Amino acid sequence: MSFGIDDLPVRDELRGKSPYGAPQLDVPVRLNTNENPYPLPEPLVERIAERVREAARDLNRYPDRDAVELRTKLAEYLTDTSGHPVGPANVWAANGSNEVIQQLLQTFGGPGRTAIGFEPSYSMHGLIARGTGTGWISGPRNDDFTIDLAAAEKAIAEHRPDVVFVTTPNNPTGTAVPAATVLALYEAAQAAKPSMVVVDEAYIEFSHGGSLLPLIEGRPNLVVSRTMSKAFGAAGLRLGYLAAHPAVVDAVQLVRLPYHLSAVTQATALAALEHTGTLLGYVEQLKSERDRLVDELRAIGYEVTASDANFVQFGRFADAHEVWRKILERGVLVRDNGVPGWLRVTAGTPAENDAFLDAVRELKKEQSA
Amino acid sequence: MSFGIDDLPVRDELRGKSPYGAPQLDVPVRLNTNENPYPLPEPLVERIAERVREAARDLNRYPDRDAVELRTKLAEYLTDTSGHPVGPANVWAANGSNEVIQQLLQTFGGPGRTAIGFEPSYSMHGLIARGTGTGWISGPRNDDFTIDLAAAEKAIAEHRPDVVFVTTPNNPTGTAVPAATVLALYEAAQAAKPSMVVVDEAYIEFSHGGSLLPLIEGRPNLVVSRTMSKAFGAAGLRLGYLAAHPAVVDAVQLVRLPYHLSAVTQATALAALEHTGTLLGYVEQLKSERDRLVDELRAIGYEVTASDANFVQFGRFADAHEVWRKILERGVLVRDNGVPGWLRVTAGTPAENDAFLDAVRELKKEQSA
Repeated sequence: MSFGIDDLPVRDELRGKSPYGAPQLDVPVRLNTNENPYPLPEPLVERIAERVREAARDLNRYPDRDAVELRTKLAEYLTDTSGHPVGPANVWAANGSNEVIQQLLQTFGGPGRTAIGFEPSYSMHGLIARGTGTGWISGPRNDDFTIDLAAAEKAIAEHRPDVVFVTTPNNPTGTAVPAATVLALYEAAQAAKPSMVVVDEAYIEFSHGGSLLPLIEGRPNLVVSRTMSKAFGAAGLRLGYLAAHPAVVDAVQLVRLPYHLSAVTQATALAALEHTGTLLGYVEQLKSERDRLVDELRAIGYEVTASDANFVQFGRFADAHEVWRKILERGVLVRDNGVPGWLRVTAGTPAENDAFLDAVRELKKEQSA
Repeated sequence: MSFGIDDLPVRDELRGKSPYGAPQLDVPVRLNTNENPYPLPEPLVERIAERVREAARDLNRYPDRDAVELRTKLAEYLTDTSGHPVGPANVWAANGSNEVIQQLLQTFGGPGRTAIGFEPSYSMHGLIARGTGTGWISGPRNDDFTIDLAAAEKAIAEHRPDVVFVTTPNNPTGTAVPAATVLALYEAAQAAKPSMVVVDEAYIEFSHGGSLLPLIEGRPNLVVSRTMSKAFGAAGLRLGYLAAHPAVVDAVQLVRLPYHLSAVTQATALAALEHTGTLLGYVEQLKSERDRLVDELRAIGYEVTASDANFVQFGRFADAHEVWRKILERGVLVRDNGVPGWLRVTAGTPAENDAFLDAVRELKKEQSA
């Protein structure tokens, strides 16, 4: 037996654990990680090369520690798309929304504190809680994956969490959360104790409704987190950000690693923000493909959770993992998020979605045969 | 009084704190953050633009989560420069050595555990310990800023820390730590309890001696951390890395945020690693400038700590901050790291160093007048 992790003095709670991450398999059609299937347009690729070249000439210097230009442009994007005016003082950026969430938990969670999420939801919330020493509470959902407000309020009153996560649209189910529900959860959370409510809007650009960003007005304990991975087609860039009261932005700077956001990341993100119009055009295509997936899956005879994201949850299966494997055998990689009875498929290009639909149509016929 | 950080439910230990970071002032000569004064050579700037353009064409996809190509090239660099063969399985990379250290503390430190450093040293060790809930122990040094081995061994035996930091060359003093001292500290640490020893070699390329990397052989609890910020002239890139037993690399993957290292960061670092020869040429120039600073400062009449880094600690001053201010008045920004009686100056270009030397020469004359 060779020397391994458990022979090192790692923390007890890490013993026997495996790293988070979807299996990365080399198959023709990859619809497993909610990536945007459209490569960046060539003029944007050129603009990135240009802005990075410029940044590289000053690469021997530390980057702008406060990323002021980037936060200004992100604020303009949020203002333009939400109709709610925010400025750079309301915005903070980090290496992916995972790092944003980590900074929030280091600031408002941590040892002796707890966070709650309503599961199934984005599993990194609980994993980052663990990584920051924050206690994790798994809150309930209804059978249709909407939030059971009465049960959620009860859980908040009982556990008095320091941080409440609300993911809308929710991953992996695709379920949007109405503003009224978020407001009720905010009130319940504040009634229990002063606490932060983090609204994770990673997929909001794909939603039928709008962003809940305007809710930050007058609610300093409410944070909206966002990402450029999905709508901006820039998963490889790792750029997450948040919008909130300026005091929240000041507070996370107490825990952020200094110079956490590289000059090349800032330059690339700024280039992408110059091409917002084109990128949001791709989002419209993906929304209609997402709606097509929902309709066709239902026509084939699957159950489908209503989706406001760039992915669709479908079922139900006695053995979801076995179905996942059979779809994979047909050259299409979808995601088994461990929700019993359900799988998740990302909306890809029309051709990719056709390949997926053909695969599951075949499966359905086999079952009926 | 407007709504501020302390009106939010932040962790108690963050109340009243300010963010870490050197003052960023717009002055002609900035010798305060140990940046490399030499911009990247133009062929490397072009190569970065080229590799980033290539990466941008796939930016809609998540980056290589395990950064295998980058770790392979870093391993080759370490093998070539240390003479000790390491492979990608020995190497891990993150957004700056700060993130490497954060991941190590999340894995081997954290709530209920402690880390020790011998101060004054790189202050982020203690700050990241705080950020990860790790107890911090400030270990002693001799008056000449070398490590007091007997006192250090005593502190380790008494506190039984889970993580021991040894910075060599030490920041902000410039002091190198001999291999024998590191080995003795490793033995002392293991005798107290199974614990990790992290040798922070951020400035090792500027050292008169070699890297302590070969010490990882047969010592799975020893980690060497490095950065591309200094010797590679790439502070803006934020690329830190470590070399250790493969089990350590496996272990930090339990806490790293998935896809933490962007595709543009990986592409830029790979480009820089193609130009190692040129960049190490700049290092040689900086070493001779560093030695010149030491000699001239001593000739002027200052006390100077022996330096193996790209910076020099000089003193002694009854009021170091007042001297810092007077040097700044003369257009040169150095660093007051809070070590009573001492200031730190980064080795810049010959012209920058001349400007600094002129400024402190003037000051000395004023004092003698």
